[in-house]
Amino acid sequence: MTDNTLSVEEISSLINSKIQEVNLPEEPAKLYDPIRYILSLGGKRLRPLLAVMSHNLFTDDVSEVILPAISIEVFHNFTLVHDDIMDEAPLRRGQVTVHKKWNNNVGILSGDTMLVKAYELLSLAPNEKLPEILAAFNKTAIGVCEGQQLDMDFEERSLLENPVTEIEYMNMIRLKTAVLFGFSLELGGIMGSEDADVSQQLYNSGVHLGLAFQLQDDLLDLYGDEKFGKQIGGDILNAKKTYLLVKALELATSDKKQELVGIMTSNTITDQEMIESVKSLYNYYQIADMAKKQIELHLEDFRKTIMNIDSSRSSKLLDFVNSLANRAV
Amino acid sequence: MTDNTLSVEEISSLINSKIQEVNLPEEPAKLYDPIRYILSLGGKRLRPLLAVMSHNLFTDDVSEVILPAISIEVFHNFTLVHDDIMDEAPLRRGQVTVHKKWNNNVGILSGDTMLVKAYELLSLAPNEKLPEILAAFNKTAIGVCEGQQLDMDFEERSLLENPVTEIEYMNMIRLKTAVLFGFSLELGGIMGSEDADVSQQLYNSGVHLGLAFQLQDDLLDLYGDEKFGKQIGGDILNAKKTYLLVKALELATSDKKQELVGIMTSNTITDQEMIESVKSLYNYYQIADMAKKQIELHLEDFRKTIMNIDSSRSSKLLDFVNSLANRAV
Repeated sequence: MTDNTLSVEEISSLINSKIQEVNLPEEPAKLYDPIRYILSLGGKRLRPLLAVMSHNLFTDDVSEVILPAISIEVFHNFTLVHDDIMDEAPLRRGQVTVHKKWNNNVGILSGDTMLVKAYELLSLAPNEKLPEILAAFNKTAIGVCEGQQLDMDFEERSLLENPVTEIEYMNMIRLKTAVLFGFSLELGGIMGSEDADVSQQLYNSGVHLGLAFQLQDDLLDLYGDEKFGKQIGGDILNAKKTYLLVKALELATSDKKQELVGIMTSNTITDQEMIESVKSLYNYYQIADMAKKQIELHLEDFRKTIMNIDSSRSSKLLDFVNSLANRAV
Repeated sequence: MTDNTLSVEEISSLINSKIQEVNLPEEPAKLYDPIRYILSLGGKRLRPLLAVMSHNLFTDDVSEVILPAISIEVFHNFTLVHDDIMDEAPLRRGQVTVHKKWNNNVGILSGDTMLVKAYELLSLAPNEKLPEILAAFNKTAIGVCEGQQLDMDFEERSLLENPVTEIEYMNMIRLKTAVLFGFSLELGGIMGSEDADVSQQLYNSGVHLGLAFQLQDDLLDLYGDEKFGKQIGGDILNAKKTYLLVKALELATSDKKQELVGIMTSNTITDQEMIESVKSLYNYYQIADMAKKQIELHLEDFRKTIMNIDSSRSSKLLDFVNSLANRAV
């Protein structure tokens, strides 16, 4: 075959230019300025990139898939705006969050508008595919809401008396993060293939990719390179229930568990001491290695499915995912 | 023709029983309990009733339209939950609001989930009609968000220095309230008729009905019957910019305007004195009569359109709207 598909960089720049063309009126300014703002903060546009590359498994023509793919980015940004209100987060992508720059009401309503805008963009998919695409997206969006609720529920649970289990944690990130990766791949499949089984496989592979992505995020928070602009160990300081913490609490003996929780709830040690002490307990139980193995397993599931679908056209997608997987771990 | 359509009461009870069948899982409880709660508070189910009756202009069969019609009620309840957070409202339909019963985060996220659920129910419309229905609904939903933003913007404007004009006010309630009435009628048209012009006329008639409905709401707040459970004059006490206030500020001489604003911002008079004083100024300028005339004009527009479409099947819808129009004014 001749490979005349767009490169990842070309798709990325096409996505970025099409995002800027999304119709957002000037007024009411308090409704649309925040949407312009959050969409201008950038990010990797990972989800639409995956949707377009998934579609590229079947055709080189990106004209039909690009706006529906962008709807996933708009939806993702809606979840960021609302999640940041719920988490009272001051920063997003190194910039002040929408609800801090304006206020909570502006965050709620501009977020709502983005969710509708996401449906508007998705509705530009070809009519004959729309029922299937909508059903898949609705299911995904419900899942994302459930995942966010589980995440908030987990934050209220006691580390010692009612710890979150690994299975619970994996189910939460499956819903909160991974199903949207699943839908991104599925969208390309629904639009590019007539085979519902193929779309389902793409969805499954995307879920595996999303799980790997979130586990890697957990890992990078503590073991990543500081140049990424995030504070190393922020999850520990915020007592965030990550894969690392959940797994450590499952593996630790009763004494070590008490020690770990004692460190994390201490008021007498410095941030740096807290991070180092928790890290050495993680290292004692080889938690990072376990996370890496989990990531590798999920990536392997992803790769196998993609190669099964069409090994002749899959290299761009596989190369891209490999480059993601190699970010700093 | 033989009239074997369902009565308004039968449609209403069908809507209520179908709403209870909407698939809402038990868990996560904090996500779905608030949705069950707000949907159980009742209300007149006006919007789905209108959608079904609009559809009945073309066919007696309600089987296809009922779930898409219910999606409008779910969407409406989503806007109530989020608006109540933004307005810090303690009560809704005489019961405690979702964000007060739980908290703001629960209100945000269960609201988001209801918006997705609304799309899920709407997507059950026949596939061949789905693109048109979705496009119409997306436009409406965006309008509702814009209307809520305008309403919040208006609340920050000075009564004397930067008063909201009647035209601005009518545009705000058109977006915040009336376009959803428009879509309710339009949905019945899209599903029941092949004539896009008819659907457009139904939309327009619904917008007129929605405007009449909101103006009547403004009027009933001050001139209504107390048995409806609302405090008479609540809008005055909350300095809410209603049609009555906007119109009075437009008509009043400079002196009377100062007097009106003086009363509304006074800290030295009782609630009852404030309500009575404002009411006598409204009466002086015959504001209630003007509101009634506006209502009658919009209802007349509504009736004309419906009778133009099909005068032989329109009596149930017209009778129902007349019964609404006669509630206590």
